[in-house]
Amino acid sequence: MANKKTDSEQIIAMEDGPILDRIQGPNDIKKISKEEYPLLAAEIREFLINSISETGGHLASNLGAVELTMALHLSLDLPNDKIVWDVGHQSYTHKLLTGRREGFQNLRKYGGMSGFPKRKESDCDAFDTGHSSTSISAGLGLVEARELKGEDHTVVSVIGDGSLTGGMAFEALNNAAKLRKNFIIILNDNNMSISENVGGLSNYLNSLRTAEKYLDLKEGVYQSLMRSGNESMVRTLRKAKSTVKQMIVPGMLFEDMGLTYLGPIDGHDVHKMMRAIRYAKRVKSAVMIHVLTEKGKGYSPAEKHPSRFHGAEPFDVATGMPKKVREKANYTDVFSTMMCKLAKVKPEMVAVSAAMMEGTGLKRFANMYPDRFFDVGIAEEHAVTFAAGLAAGGMRPVVAIYSSFLQRAYDQILHDVCLQNLPVVFAIDRAGLVGSDGETHQGIFDLSYLSSIPNMTVMAPKNKWELADMLEFALEQESPCAIRYPRGTAYDGLKEYRDPVAMGKCEVLFKRDDAEICLIAVGSMVKTAEELYAKLEAEGHKCMLINARFVKPIDPSMAEYVRGSSLVVTLEENVISGGFGEQFRELLDERVPAEVRPKQLNVSLPDAYVEHGNVDILKKEVELDAESIYYRILEALN
Amino acid sequence: MANKKTDSEQIIAMEDGPILDRIQGPNDIKKISKEEYPLLAAEIREFLINSISETGGHLASNLGAVELTMALHLSLDLPNDKIVWDVGHQSYTHKLLTGRREGFQNLRKYGGMSGFPKRKESDCDAFDTGHSSTSISAGLGLVEARELKGEDHTVVSVIGDGSLTGGMAFEALNNAAKLRKNFIIILNDNNMSISENVGGLSNYLNSLRTAEKYLDLKEGVYQSLMRSGNESMVRTLRKAKSTVKQMIVPGMLFEDMGLTYLGPIDGHDVHKMMRAIRYAKRVKSAVMIHVLTEKGKGYSPAEKHPSRFHGAEPFDVATGMPKKVREKANYTDVFSTMMCKLAKVKPEMVAVSAAMMEGTGLKRFANMYPDRFFDVGIAEEHAVTFAAGLAAGGMRPVVAIYSSFLQRAYDQILHDVCLQNLPVVFAIDRAGLVGSDGETHQGIFDLSYLSSIPNMTVMAPKNKWELADMLEFALEQESPCAIRYPRGTAYDGLKEYRDPVAMGKCEVLFKRDDAEICLIAVGSMVKTAEELYAKLEAEGHKCMLINARFVKPIDPSMAEYVRGSSLVVTLEENVISGGFGEQFRELLDERVPAEVRPKQLNVSLPDAYVEHGNVDILKKEVELDAESIYYRILEALN
Repeated sequence: MANKKTDSEQIIAMEDGPILDRIQGPNDIKKISKEEYPLLAAEIREFLINSISETGGHLASNLGAVELTMALHLSLDLPNDKIVWDVGHQSYTHKLLTGRREGFQNLRKYGGMSGFPKRKESDCDAFDTGHSSTSISAGLGLVEARELKGEDHTVVSVIGDGSLTGGMAFEALNNAAKLRKNFIIILNDNNMSISENVGGLSNYLNSLRTAEKYLDLKEGVYQSLMRSGNESMVRTLRKAKSTVKQMIVPGMLFEDMGLTYLGPIDGHDVHKMMRAIRYAKRVKSAVMIHVLTEKGKGYSPAEKHPSRFHGAEPFDVATGMPKKVREKANYTDVFSTMMCKLAKVKPEMVAVSAAMMEGTGLKRFANMYPDRFFDVGIAEEHAVTFAAGLAAGGMRPVVAIYSSFLQRAYDQILHDVCLQNLPVVFAIDRAGLVGSDGETHQGIFDLSYLSSIPNMTVMAPKNKWELADMLEFALEQESPCAIRYPRGTAYDGLKEYRDPVAMGKCEVLFKRDDAEICLIAVGSMVKTAEELYAKLEAEGHKCMLINARFVKPIDPSMAEYVRGSSLVVTLEENVISGGFGEQFRELLDERVPAEVRPKQLNVSLPDAYVEHGNVDILKKEVELDAESIYYRILEALN
Repeated sequence: MANKKTDSEQIIAMEDGPILDRIQGPNDIKKISKEEYPLLAAEIREFLINSISETGGHLASNLGAVELTMALHLSLDLPNDKIVWDVGHQSYTHKLLTGRREGFQNLRKYGGMSGFPKRKESDCDAFDTGHSSTSISAGLGLVEARELKGEDHTVVSVIGDGSLTGGMAFEALNNAAKLRKNFIIILNDNNMSISENVGGLSNYLNSLRTAEKYLDLKEGVYQSLMRSGNESMVRTLRKAKSTVKQMIVPGMLFEDMGLTYLGPIDGHDVHKMMRAIRYAKRVKSAVMIHVLTEKGKGYSPAEKHPSRFHGAEPFDVATGMPKKVREKANYTDVFSTMMCKLAKVKPEMVAVSAAMMEGTGLKRFANMYPDRFFDVGIAEEHAVTFAAGLAAGGMRPVVAIYSSFLQRAYDQILHDVCLQNLPVVFAIDRAGLVGSDGETHQGIFDLSYLSSIPNMTVMAPKNKWELADMLEFALEQESPCAIRYPRGTAYDGLKEYRDPVAMGKCEVLFKRDDAEICLIAVGSMVKTAEELYAKLEAEGHKCMLINARFVKPIDPSMAEYVRGSSLVVTLEENVISGGFGEQFRELLDERVPAEVRPKQLNVSLPDAYVEHGNVDILKKEVELDAESIYYRILEALN
């Protein structure tokens, strides 16, 4: 690594000044001479490595897409032409080349630049992304809109081979195949999703990658097509059901679907990609350009450990090691440990991940019980129905998917798992505010979308021991159970409160019969409520603190506990609509007569998307921090 | 048709008695002699045609799958072996052959047999289905469970070519491809989804269907493989990147993914299919058997109009015409007419359907504005994000998807449409109880899952004119709007109440300042509330009736209208959690001080899946009919 950096420094030193300084806005890259492209790529890499080492962010995917992005910007006219970045975490070079260099100082910080494309950030960002596999659908929509409006511009969707395993990408390809208008799909194939890629498609792409004997021939044919300047040969090739086609068009699978396939092309060769794009623009159908890139390219720690540098915390450039060492376990660690412990005594237990083995903490389980671990790729829908099948077959699956990604499988949870009341456990990490990934990744809807589903049990633990207890409890049930827990450090307070988990039963932490204020908190908010309790009690308010534990079924005895007090405050890290607060109000009004019914204050997230930024700042912003809630309580008391 | 029926009658007359009488339970079909198979198929068809002509039900798909089902039952050992029927509306022959003949008398009736596979109905039903494209995922789960438990049985997933366009089927195929254990996938290819099939995959399958020159050769190779009794030849073929493979294995696309492909095979030839299944059982990987069937086979009206006989009302066998002629327009008709009317003056308006052009009422629009109509196949996820792309490109898309199918696109609505606040209109038909299709099709969650999403507007019309007005209103907004309306006859009462639709404003139908009881109804429940109003007023109760119109944003002025009354009753055809009632309670408690706050009764659907049956009976059963609500109101008043 040190060598590489020295190399690029030497190259840059030979020039008058950084080339990057000459790029202040869209299309400025076109003023750079061809000979300078490698230098520019090196400068971009150095900038990204240095910048992300300070702020944290997605590194490996961006290092892999430097030349690809340069080729796109050199070939297109932005913002007139449209680029849709799938997932969007590979859009840093795009941001750099569209005049947002200054933004990197506050990348993913509150009020700063997003780590994903945002239409409100730049008119060069054609479509907001964050979740996987949406880009071809969105791009196809932009293409059809262009045609109907009689406009003339190019639409390019850039999708990774990992994202291509998501079902909706296939739905979109199936539709793109019948298109008789130009639409460019760039398959950025680095042979990785976030973890390693899985499945038939991955094997197929691998066979293309390694089909070296075809490459030269393909390149030859391709060159001759370029020179001929028309599409007749491609048409002939596409029609020919012959050996020739099989020999020179490795992308048969895509061609068979009806797409025009170009590639594979070296995704670190700007000139080759520019030629491919130039050619692709002339085709009156959907064209897939298959480019081969290396995740983490140009920074050896990231090349060696692309998964670790997918979304990186600030790190030391020389060693690649994180600047801050994590001192306390986070909820993912607790889940990870508990999964392995329980698996030892529960042979029917299996685990399912959707391309997030590391992130969800299932790597150890996968190593210890490889036969009982299933990584299905970026395919949350399949993951859930597959788990339903496992459960119908007598196994006890634990499906570990982040809160915001599980939204993809709402119908499968409702229609395949809960309708049949199958014992599938959902381990929902990143529930609540997640911080720097922002709007698309906040896990703030799960209490609502899960509570509406019959037969479902929904839990949230107050601390690390409770997560372990809830997981064990969930695996003993004969019905579907969800446990949602937040990103980050696991709370290790309230250790002495560890009542056995019982179906639909809350845990009264601090009880008093003459309570004036009753705090009822869900999961992560128990810690906040504990602070509030201490503060309010210290000021002479008589308080009670209940850990709800279950959002569904909701514990009716909570209505009895709060009867006769002045104020009940519910606290949850979820939107208000369909959340715990509304459900508790229903319970309270039904169970407690108006004359002894306390006033109710529902503390929750607002009915809005919450931007990126430090979670503590965000909580202040949305008034979910202890101080804000304290004042809201005082206000409600008066 | 008359001729065909006569034919089968003649054939049967030649026998001692109906063969079907000899089939009383699973595996009884194995006692039937080979020579009798065609007669049995004819008897099954006659039974299905006669039975469904009386009860209504799915006809065309079942007539197409008679021989396929026979071949499966002859080749498998039920219930030990498992069949997962995708969607499940083609499972009637399966039900017949597993001893459920009597059930057809009350098919899809309340308390009667379901039109879909149900584990609680028979242990021969391995997995409940209803929505599309789930069978391969579920089957794969059953396979992995079998292997982990060391069991030895066959798992077969039967999926239509239409269902194969759904993304999660592809996600599952991608995973099935790496399987080194036996798993049989039968592709029942009738070249139709519910409407005609679309997209690249369909074209590809067509190319296989018509690849007649390959068929003989394939059959020859296939026969020789059968005789050779081992898989070496298949292995060789799979490995060969050669002309031979291309010539004799038409299923390259599937083979390229890593599946073993057998076919295409005549799906009306029991013997050929049995041989294929026998061979497939020996393969240690996922095997796709591609069978070609004709939707509606054996009943000429259904052969000619398979779409009309997809889900049929009771019909006259001789003519194929419905027994009852619809006299009043239903909501779908109103939507259909209004779409065409608005399209004339709004050139930016486009429509998107997910393989439901007829069902959603978009056929006329498609005929009048073919360039502005998009049928994307059974692909709700893509449909929604594609619409987001269209909107981002300046168009005004209307996405028409049934309530329960739109569950598939929850994340796309949240992440692709609403996050960017794009003006997409969702026309949500079949919202509320749908009746005979039952649990999987009830549209009873949409108010909950849509209300939790920021930027979304959610409306429900009280009658047919309001649906028209709301559609026009929605198309004028700069943000996403959903309109949900029920299956069946459009209410044509309350014609004189037609206040202009205004964002977030309710409509007060019957006002009085001294109201004792305030009824606030959503959409379809306004009609019920009108009945209640009349009855309660006639009995001397002072009542008020409000049409909520908007579930989101909820109209705060409603809190003012009900202030000081004794009881406010909310009425909605949706589950309680996250629905209108909970949201109104939140509003009321926040806005109206306890001393002038009325008691609130939330009338909604229970937290449960609702079975199939006549909607009026179901409403009584779940206490959503006027009479049940009347008694609940009296109870609440005391």
